[in-house]
Amino acid sequence: MKTLLIIGIGAGHPEHITVQAARALGRVDVFFLLDKGEHKGKLNALRRDILERHTTPGAYRVVEVLQPERPAGSDYRASVDVLNTRKRAVFEQLLDDEVADGECAGVLVWGDPSLYDSTLRIVEAIAADGVRALDYEVFPGVTSVQALTAAHRITLNSIAGAVQITTGRRLAAGMPDGVDTVVVMLDAQDGFLALLGENLDIYWGAYVGTVDEVLLSGRLDDVAKMIVQARQEARRRHGWIMDSYLLRRRT
Amino acid sequence: MKTLLIIGIGAGHPEHITVQAARALGRVDVFFLLDKGEHKGKLNALRRDILERHTTPGAYRVVEVLQPERPAGSDYRASVDVLNTRKRAVFEQLLDDEVADGECAGVLVWGDPSLYDSTLRIVEAIAADGVRALDYEVFPGVTSVQALTAAHRITLNSIAGAVQITTGRRLAAGMPDGVDTVVVMLDAQDGFLALLGENLDIYWGAYVGTVDEVLLSGRLDDVAKMIVQARQEARRRHGWIMDSYLLRRRT
Ligand SMILES: C[S@@+](CC[C@H](N)C(=O)[O-])C[C@H]1O[C@@H](n2cnc3c(N)ncnc32)[C@H](O)[C@@H]1O
Ligand SMILES: C[S@@+](CC[C@H](N)C(=O)[O-])C[C@H]1O[C@@H](n2cnc3c(N)ncnc32)[C@H](O)[C@@H]1O
Repeated sequence: MKTLLIIGIGAGHPEHITVQAARALGRVDVFFLLDKGEHKGKLNALRRDILERHTTPGAYRVVEVLQPERPAGSDYRASVDVLNTRKRAVFEQLLDDEVADGECAGVLVWGDPSLYDSTLRIVEAIAADGVRALDYEVFPGVTSVQALTAAHRITLNSIAGAVQITTGRRLAAGMPDGVDTVVVMLDAQDGFLALLGENLDIYWGAYVGTVDEVLLSGRLDDVAKMIVQARQEARRRHGWIMDSYLLRRRT
Repeated sequence: MKTLLIIGIGAGHPEHITVQAARALGRVDVFFLLDKGEHKGKLNALRRDILERHTTPGAYRVVEVLQPERPAGSDYRASVDVLNTRKRAVFEQLLDDEVADGECAGVLVWGDPSLYDSTLRIVEAIAADGVRALDYEVFPGVTSVQALTAAHRITLNSIAGAVQITTGRRLAAGMPDGVDTVVVMLDAQDGFLALLGENLDIYWGAYVGTVDEVLLSGRLDDVAKMIVQARQEARRRHGWIMDSYLLRRRT
C-alpha cells in the first residue's frame, strides 16, 4: 500500500497553509513538484518556500517533473481530457518509480484541491482502477477566492445572496441569472469587457498574497481599461499572469 | 486608533486555521466571543480550543457576549437588517468599553469571513462612519465548502464547469441554470427535497471537521430520506445542526 497526500497550500501567501496541512507535510517521504514550464516555475518556488518553512530539511525527497501541456485545439473540454490522460500517466509513473511500498507521497496543490485543479480527479481514477494499492487523503486550503476577498476586505456574497464561481470562458455568456456576485477565474482574455454597461463593481487582484500582489477595484465601467493595462503590464514584467476578480451588481 | 483583526478560523477542525491566522492571534489584546445562545455555545468551545492551542495563556483578555437574535418575521432580508443594526451596536459598545486606545481586538470568524457572515459588513460600517478611529484587517480561512469537499474527497467544480453557492431558502427556486454544481448552506428545511427526480448526486455533511462529523452521499433520490433522518437525529442529539451539501447533475 502506498499513500498520497493531496495538500492544499493556499494561493500565494506562504502562511495561508493551514496548521493541519503544515503538519501533514511532516508525514511525507517524497514530494512531487509538477512544474508547468519556465514562467510557472514561480509557483514551485513558493512550494519550495513552504517546504522550507514548515518541514525538517533532509526528512524527505523532492521529485520535480515537467507537466504535460494542454494540446492546442478548439474543443476545450476534449483538450482537457487529453491533458488529464497525460497527467495521469505522469502520476502513475511517479507512484511506481519514486514511492516504495509503505511510503507516503505528497502533492502540494495551489489554493484548495477542490477548485479548478485536476489532481484529485486523476488520483481518484488511479485509485479506482485497482492496479495499485493506493490510499489518498485530502487537506483543504484557502482558495484564491478567499485570498481575493480578504485582500479587498470584502464579503463574497451580498446579504442572503447567491454567488457563482466561473471561468473567463463562460463569462462570455454574460452575467448569470439569479446571482448578484460572480467570481471569475482562469480568464486569459479580459472577459469582463463583455459586461461593460451592466452596472457592476469589480474587485480584481493579481498574484494575490504574494510580494507581487496588485489590487484594483471600482465601478467596472470606470476601471476596466486600467485593469486591461495592469494585466498587460503584469504579463510583460513577469512573463505570465495569475489573476481573478469578483463582479457584483450595484444596488 | 484601535485595530480589529477579523480572523477566519476554519469551519470545525481546530487545525484548519492558517499559520498566518494562528500567528495573528498573538497580536490580539482582547478577543470578542459572540455567543448565539445555549446550543451554539459549542462554536465558542471550539473558538476557546483554538485560542488554547495557538496562544500564550494570560497574554489577552476574552469578552464573551450574547449575540442579538434575528427578529421573527416573514421578510428575511428586513429581519437581517434589523439583526445587523443590533449587532453593530454590540460591536460599537465592545470597541468603546473593552478596547483601550492603541490596543488590538480580535474576532474569530467561523470558516472564512467573506462567506455568509455579517462581521465584515458591520465592521466596515463602523469604520466608515468616522466616529471612531478604527483600522481593521481580514485573515482568510478555510470555508465549510472546502471542509465539505475535502471530507468527501471530491472536487467543487466539474471539468471547466461553474459552481453556485447558495442558501436553502433560494434553492426552492430549483437547480439554477448554467451550473451543474450547487453548494447549499444555511438550509433549515431539507431544501434538497424540492429537487427529487432531477438526476442529481448529493454530498452532505454535518459538523464537518469536528468529532461529531456525519457524511452521507449518493444519488439524491436514493439517499434523500436517509439525510432527512440523519438531520432529525443530529438535531435531537445535539440540540442544533450545522450542515451543508453539494448537489451535482449526474452525467
Ligand atoms: C488552475 S486554477 C487553481 C485554483 C486554486 N486551486 C484555488 O483554490 O484557488 C488557477 C486560477 O486561480 C486563480 N488564482 C490562483 N492563485 C491566484 C492568486 N494568488 N491571485 C489571483 N488569482 C489566483 C487565477 O484565476 C488562476 O487562473
Ligand atoms: C452563517 S454561515 C457561516 C459560513 C462560514 N463563514 C464559512 O466560511 O463556512 C453557517 C453555515 O455554514 C455551513 N457550515 C459551517 N460550518 C459547517 C460545518 N462544520 N459542517 C457543515 N456545514 C457547515 C452551514 O450550512 C451553516 O448553516
